[in-house]
Amino acid sequence: MSIYVNNPHLDSMKDDILYHFNLGTSTHDLPAMFGDVKFVCVGGSPWRMKSFTEYIAKELGLLEPNAEFPNICEGTDRYAMYKVGPVLSVSHGMGIPSTLIKLLYHAHCTDVTVVRIGTSGGIGLKPGIVVVTKQSVDSVFQPRLEQVILGKPVVRSTELDAELAEELLQSGKDLAEFETVIGNTMCTLDFYEGQARLDGAFCSYSEEDKQSYLAEAYAAGVRNIEMESSVFAAMCKLSNLRAAVVCVTLLDRLKGDQLTSSHDILNSYQQRPQVLVGHYIKKKLNAYKKS
Amino acid sequence: MSIYVNNPHLDSMKDDILYHFNLGTSTHDLPAMFGDVKFVCVGGSPWRMKSFTEYIAKELGLLEPNAEFPNICEGTDRYAMYKVGPVLSVSHGMGIPSTLIKLLYHAHCTDVTVVRIGTSGGIGLKPGIVVVTKQSVDSVFQPRLEQVILGKPVVRSTELDAELAEELLQSGKDLAEFETVIGNTMCTLDFYEGQARLDGAFCSYSEEDKQSYLAEAYAAGVRNIEMESSVFAAMCKLSNLRAAVVCVTLLDRLKGDQLTSSHDILNSYQQRPQVLVGHYIKKKLNAYKKS
Repeated sequence: MSIYVNNPHLDSMKDDILYHFNLGTSTHDLPAMFGDVKFVCVGGSPWRMKSFTEYIAKELGLLEPNAEFPNICEGTDRYAMYKVGPVLSVSHGMGIPSTLIKLLYHAHCTDVTVVRIGTSGGIGLKPGIVVVTKQSVDSVFQPRLEQVILGKPVVRSTELDAELAEELLQSGKDLAEFETVIGNTMCTLDFYEGQARLDGAFCSYSEEDKQSYLAEAYAAGVRNIEMESSVFAAMCKLSNLRAAVVCVTLLDRLKGDQLTSSHDILNSYQQRPQVLVGHYIKKKLNAYKKS
Repeated sequence: MSIYVNNPHLDSMKDDILYHFNLGTSTHDLPAMFGDVKFVCVGGSPWRMKSFTEYIAKELGLLEPNAEFPNICEGTDRYAMYKVGPVLSVSHGMGIPSTLIKLLYHAHCTDVTVVRIGTSGGIGLKPGIVVVTKQSVDSVFQPRLEQVILGKPVVRSTELDAELAEELLQSGKDLAEFETVIGNTMCTLDFYEGQARLDGAFCSYSEEDKQSYLAEAYAAGVRNIEMESSVFAAMCKLSNLRAAVVCVTLLDRLKGDQLTSSHDILNSYQQRPQVLVGHYIKKKLNAYKKS
């Protein structure tokens, strides 16, 4: 399954500079560097993506003594990228989904699975539960993303791969180290008012308004809220990439808005999506080897 | 002039944890730490905000031998915050404008000026020209931001302080080290299709469509395009903060979409908004001293 890029202009470009990654088609041999990538994990924190790479290297038996994992995007401090074997880890940010797709395309990668791992606020879930996203939905609970192109709105589907979601849920169950559920994930543009928080600089609604909005969300199948999944899902769908979103919940939004758990507890929660996805990748690679 | 926070819930909170900054009202003495802040600079790159702090310390004669500027938000690698004298430097990201406003409010700061410094794509401008934003406009060139609150759209003004913009333009002229212009800044949600680039993973329009859209933008007074100014401007306006946006252009979008200049040249361009804002702050502080 190849990566689908829908841009007739790309073929006529002599060189494609992937500015955000500090890479380019004429300066780097992208097929040699990335052609063997089968799994891409995207997450918010550069530091966490490095720690994920070390973890997965250990899990896959690819950790050599004194191994160092240099940041492939060195020279920019906004993004970080690490690779070990068939696993690429990238921190996200402005323009990343699209640039990542171009990278995989230029590198002639095939059969790639992309998973966003991250944190979220839960709805009606105990903190620390991992949510595998069924659908990424907008603020009125629809699986769509409205983008603006040349000043005109364009609506795109944020549908994710249902089979992959089920497989990831199964990995969580196999592990049995923490609770894993499947549910819809609401993606917002704002951390405070967009998520019905009462503790932002501005708030024009009551606690009752908040609770009734979150109850509506819950009724529509929403189990957690974050801010990245919709662009990620829409871009992956457009490119024929198998994609999933796995986020841990750091709090139950029905019970509050602030993160009151200790940093140690929050940090341990944040490792759970990594552990789950690590387990999944290992299982998949073992299955390939056997077949 | 005090900072205006419009949230009746805030007063009833015993403690406000500013999670993104790793700070809180019960764990930190925010008025002691930040009460003297008069200028806040917000920028995209943690590293650049540190280098700005070192630069401004030198400019203001506040650089002590062997001075180190620790990251006040230590413990999170998503954001960075540095302070020297009355100048606070913060890297931006998810939820930052709102959290920053709460920080200034809790610290009882008064008469604060906030400037976003950053990079952008220019329209009809030579690369390296600095644009002081007159108005931050959306993709149909209107000075507004649509947010979604409890699933319903809310439109907010992105008006900036006209007097401050003129003063910053004057600082650019006084310096005479590079060209500085005033113009509207278009703020988009997407780096590729949202900015009419032809080099993204997806593109459904022609070079002519792109050029005619950018020509429309130019006719509406738009001189550069970036992705942060509208939330920044809207939040500052709601909070009674004098705010400005100063971005250097890294390329002329009428001539291309890719960043083809060398990293050294791009880095030198990126210092220009810092130098301009440094000059402005120094001038303002000297005027205070004299009065």
